[in-house]
Amino acid sequence: MCTQTPNKLANAIRFLAIDAVQKANSGHPGAPMGMADIAEVLWRDYLQHNPADPNWPNRDRFVLSNGHASMLLYSLLHLTGYDVSIEDLKQFRQLHSKTPGHPELGYTLGVETTTGPLGQGIANAVGMAIAEKTLAATFNRTGFPVISHFTYTFLGDGCLMEGISHEACSLAGTLQLNKLIAFYDDNRISIDGDTEGWFTDNTAKRFEAYGWHVIRSIDGHSRPAIKAAIEQAHQQTAKPTLIICRTTIGYGSPNKAGTAASHGAPLGQEEIALTRQQLGWAYPPFEIPEDIYQLWSAIERGAEQQLRWEQRVREYAKQYPELATQLHQRLSNQLADSFNSVMDEYIHQLNDNPESIATRKASQNTLNVIGPILPELIGGSADLAPSNLTHWSGSIPINQQPSGNYIHYGVREFGMTAIANGICLHGGFRPYTATFLMFSEYAQNAVRMAALMKLPQVLVYTHDSIGLGEDGPTHQPVEQLASLRATPNLSVWRPCCQVETAVAWQQAILTEQTPIALVLSRQNLQQPHRSPEQLANIQRGGYILRSNSSEPDLILIATGSEVTLAIEAWDDLTAQGFKINVVSMPSTDTFDKQPEEYKQRVLPNAIRQRIAIEASISDYWRKYVGLDGLIMGMTSFGESAPAEQLFDYFGFTVDNLVTMSLSLLKENIEN
Amino acid sequence: MCTQTPNKLANAIRFLAIDAVQKANSGHPGAPMGMADIAEVLWRDYLQHNPADPNWPNRDRFVLSNGHASMLLYSLLHLTGYDVSIEDLKQFRQLHSKTPGHPELGYTLGVETTTGPLGQGIANAVGMAIAEKTLAATFNRTGFPVISHFTYTFLGDGCLMEGISHEACSLAGTLQLNKLIAFYDDNRISIDGDTEGWFTDNTAKRFEAYGWHVIRSIDGHSRPAIKAAIEQAHQQTAKPTLIICRTTIGYGSPNKAGTAASHGAPLGQEEIALTRQQLGWAYPPFEIPEDIYQLWSAIERGAEQQLRWEQRVREYAKQYPELATQLHQRLSNQLADSFNSVMDEYIHQLNDNPESIATRKASQNTLNVIGPILPELIGGSADLAPSNLTHWSGSIPINQQPSGNYIHYGVREFGMTAIANGICLHGGFRPYTATFLMFSEYAQNAVRMAALMKLPQVLVYTHDSIGLGEDGPTHQPVEQLASLRATPNLSVWRPCCQVETAVAWQQAILTEQTPIALVLSRQNLQQPHRSPEQLANIQRGGYILRSNSSEPDLILIATGSEVTLAIEAWDDLTAQGFKINVVSMPSTDTFDKQPEEYKQRVLPNAIRQRIAIEASISDYWRKYVGLDGLIMGMTSFGESAPAEQLFDYFGFTVDNLVTMSLSLLKENIEN
Repeated sequence: MCTQTPNKLANAIRFLAIDAVQKANSGHPGAPMGMADIAEVLWRDYLQHNPADPNWPNRDRFVLSNGHASMLLYSLLHLTGYDVSIEDLKQFRQLHSKTPGHPELGYTLGVETTTGPLGQGIANAVGMAIAEKTLAATFNRTGFPVISHFTYTFLGDGCLMEGISHEACSLAGTLQLNKLIAFYDDNRISIDGDTEGWFTDNTAKRFEAYGWHVIRSIDGHSRPAIKAAIEQAHQQTAKPTLIICRTTIGYGSPNKAGTAASHGAPLGQEEIALTRQQLGWAYPPFEIPEDIYQLWSAIERGAEQQLRWEQRVREYAKQYPELATQLHQRLSNQLADSFNSVMDEYIHQLNDNPESIATRKASQNTLNVIGPILPELIGGSADLAPSNLTHWSGSIPINQQPSGNYIHYGVREFGMTAIANGICLHGGFRPYTATFLMFSEYAQNAVRMAALMKLPQVLVYTHDSIGLGEDGPTHQPVEQLASLRATPNLSVWRPCCQVETAVAWQQAILTEQTPIALVLSRQNLQQPHRSPEQLANIQRGGYILRSNSSEPDLILIATGSEVTLAIEAWDDLTAQGFKINVVSMPSTDTFDKQPEEYKQRVLPNAIRQRIAIEASISDYWRKYVGLDGLIMGMTSFGESAPAEQLFDYFGFTVDNLVTMSLSLLKENIEN
Repeated sequence: MCTQTPNKLANAIRFLAIDAVQKANSGHPGAPMGMADIAEVLWRDYLQHNPADPNWPNRDRFVLSNGHASMLLYSLLHLTGYDVSIEDLKQFRQLHSKTPGHPELGYTLGVETTTGPLGQGIANAVGMAIAEKTLAATFNRTGFPVISHFTYTFLGDGCLMEGISHEACSLAGTLQLNKLIAFYDDNRISIDGDTEGWFTDNTAKRFEAYGWHVIRSIDGHSRPAIKAAIEQAHQQTAKPTLIICRTTIGYGSPNKAGTAASHGAPLGQEEIALTRQQLGWAYPPFEIPEDIYQLWSAIERGAEQQLRWEQRVREYAKQYPELATQLHQRLSNQLADSFNSVMDEYIHQLNDNPESIATRKASQNTLNVIGPILPELIGGSADLAPSNLTHWSGSIPINQQPSGNYIHYGVREFGMTAIANGICLHGGFRPYTATFLMFSEYAQNAVRMAALMKLPQVLVYTHDSIGLGEDGPTHQPVEQLASLRATPNLSVWRPCCQVETAVAWQQAILTEQTPIALVLSRQNLQQPHRSPEQLANIQRGGYILRSNSSEPDLILIATGSEVTLAIEAWDDLTAQGFKINVVSMPSTDTFDKQPEEYKQRVLPNAIRQRIAIEASISDYWRKYVGLDGLIMGMTSFGESAPAEQLFDYFGFTVDNLVTMSLSLLKENIEN
């Protein structure tokens, strides 16, 4: 594949990658070495970006979907002038460096998204391209393309084997994302060796089947071929482009090029010396000649590009002052001033007008209130809109109108969630996505990525328990709440009525660095009466909803559909003269963050007679009831039957709860 | 699409589905009505099966990947003569009926797999076809095709949108599974409506890109067209076949056919009457004329087919007695008699010869011991064989030799796990699969399906904590152990050394109805000394590994790589004169199943000074340490750095553990 004079500019990337991996004694040199030529052409001749302002809103986006090739990206950022020094590169894979093992959002300016879990980068890129297209359709006016940029992504065999690449790329074709350009590093090597034994797709044909423009098998080490392909891609008006680049993994290494040996381990000193020889690179590790730095620098060009854009926006603002204000608000994530007052009023109104509705319906009602004042909301569901109730009166599908605010994601939970992460990352939007709680599992790692990247995606998960009824155990979540609650930086709400649902939505919109899961019922739920203080305390995640004594002997803790059970048991036990509190705990993580004094008021350490009630896996609740409390929960999978029968069958009855309570209270008396 | 005289035989399916859904007031009539004609041709003219013996090993497999069409399958089972009565059909979607909302393995004879979570059925079918092909290559001899059957599957738009369909079908093409035949119900309707807005794939082209034989757009209501397609599929020698059937969802319903209205709700009495009229079906609900039953019955034909096969096997046994014995053992899941003695000896030998190796390496060593005596083992990894260490000296990839025992699954975690479920379901194999613990999330719902279906797949999950080091937070599991442990009927083992690893493997092979996750370290772990009693107690999931008093004041509970920490702290505290036990708890679920007396011995209720130590999310351990204990665990995502630094950084040090212990012990003294 060595078809041209070694390119010194690309070799600068190669040796930064080789030497950093060697110094760390850990990492992946093969892909940076293989994709260096493509990166050189794209970043030097095409990519619009400003190293001095990595957050310039109209920059081209670059996503390294094969995130293990992180040294490729760090080298590019260093060479083009970002705040990534040669010292930073020497700290590759060290604690708290700017150059962690995989690109991590927030650690390194210029890194657009965290990648590593394969296939998700390309899905993020699809989200960014959707964001660009939708913003452009909303804000651009003739002569004023204020939003107009490309989204480029690099990906490898691993990304293309992962199912999420199917979900994301299929939708990208349908949505005609012509500004999305993907470079496939077709090196035919994966960790297990030559991919021939497990990956024989005709990828060109596959992507044509998705409605992509495919540029077949160019030489990924040939500057003219790469350039011609990008030019062709830029001409597309209705199709995303896949450029299939035949490359050699570990290009330049005499003994390891073209083999899995160069994928995920340092080349070794001896091989590095031979590679220096073969590529004619005479410089010592981490030394790049000044003329090469000069040829790489994007500082001047980037500043000019951004300046031209800023001038364009200023002129736009003169002609379209309102639009310009809106655009500014969108790009700077400014929440409508009225949001809190509108929500507070709405929540009070709901509290004063009780209704027994499903919390999924309460969620839709809330969307109808906030939708009109939050143009940044972009909703969607994985083909369950009529079940998740995620569309509201102002929902307009983007497949029908490019400036719309609703995405029919199709049956693609994982793709949806990762695409919405990309929309978040792009800016200008607050995405909410939806599926059944059960199928959050299909998307689990994208939920985790939202939490890791601190992206405030709103995850609407309906059909939250055995309460979904007849569809049976494959559709009835049991362990999913525990999984979600175990995820760091993910907030989980399981509201018990329309009021708690509205509060949960308010918190979801107010949060800036945390994805939030709204876990909602299919079935109708009774709305309990609340005092003003109780109403105000909902946002604390847990609060005393019923109390007949300031020194209770027993505390019932419930969430969602089980709060009614707790209240009814409380009524019964109160009539029997017992001292009992009911705590509604819609969000355990939010409750955990409250001041110790508040938490002690709700769950005093001394009161160990506690019962948790939730139609979800029991074990989780040991956190709140300890070893001495009891749990009314699930310990098995569900069954197929009408919901009411199932609650009975699995023991979620007032009678049982009263019996459990009495057993604890008696123990107390006996002790 | 109404191209032929209404087919009474297919209409029998339609009205059983219509009437059962109506009676249940819940369910999905649209797909059974749309696919009835295809099912009639396949089941009456081709499917080799015996209603009297649904477990006949050489039957054709039929997988309803669009599981919501369950009434299609129940109708077929009823009509062809399985033990599914008309009364059973009337109990559709009722508690403990044979006809739950989605097909559930074990509830209904003739249901080959539980389906409903979209895309997994087709992956199960790929697994079944792999099992058939591998068994055939191993056991068939000229003139004796003792294993020779087709695997048929029905699937819809939803399955094809899901990413897992890409993973499974891509691999099916590579592995040339010519006995796999899929019928795509191309009705262009999903829950959100006409799929045109979100699913525009050229599916024919997509599957050709995977190396499938595709039969394009036949009329799915035309008997001759369906028949011709199946004949053509049967001729394939190296390619799986996709038959794309243009159908009308809700076929026969004058007002709801071709719309989402017929997908997931009863048609309603009025529309049902109109449908009866349109299809000329004069019979009342749940009444099928005797002549139709006779035409449907597969009882005689099935008995003959099985008889012929049994004769063939008898003759085979004469000519190949050893092979026949092996085949019988494989098909009846007989474990090698020597298994336990070999393992017991191996475990003792390891105990006597301590080594500090990674548990992933210990797992590979164990495979080298059990591999030679367990021909039913079929291993594999999602492109991480050299990292998971799942290949052993006798591993032969099936892509190189069809009678092999190792599958290079490619980077396809979800597909892999669901395919292995299919291999389990087929019989003749014990599959083990592997990836990093982190990426178990990609496969989570297939793991759940294994647990729900009680399939003893062995899930090898290496790189089990921040201990994987430099690859950083995207690759470092934190919450995954909690998720796995929350799954009903999933056994989870996190061994601390080579001995516990071997015991975990032993349990994995001995279990018959439970999938088991082996959570293994990348880094070397010290092997503690064990007494014979301690050695014997490992299989109880939790046991006292160090004790300096029969009445300890503090119990340290640790798993995996953190057991060493606990032992070192114990050494220190013992020297200081404190009374302390160390409990190694490789499998919490196994420990939970022990007799109360044993559990009390290990964790006496009265001793509340407890510390759990595990490099995983903390909250889970409240189950064992309660509200008064302490937890040394993770509460955030990891970081990219060398592993040893990370353990320090996140506080996993002996000093910290001693300090925590002293804080609890002092409390005790003060109280």
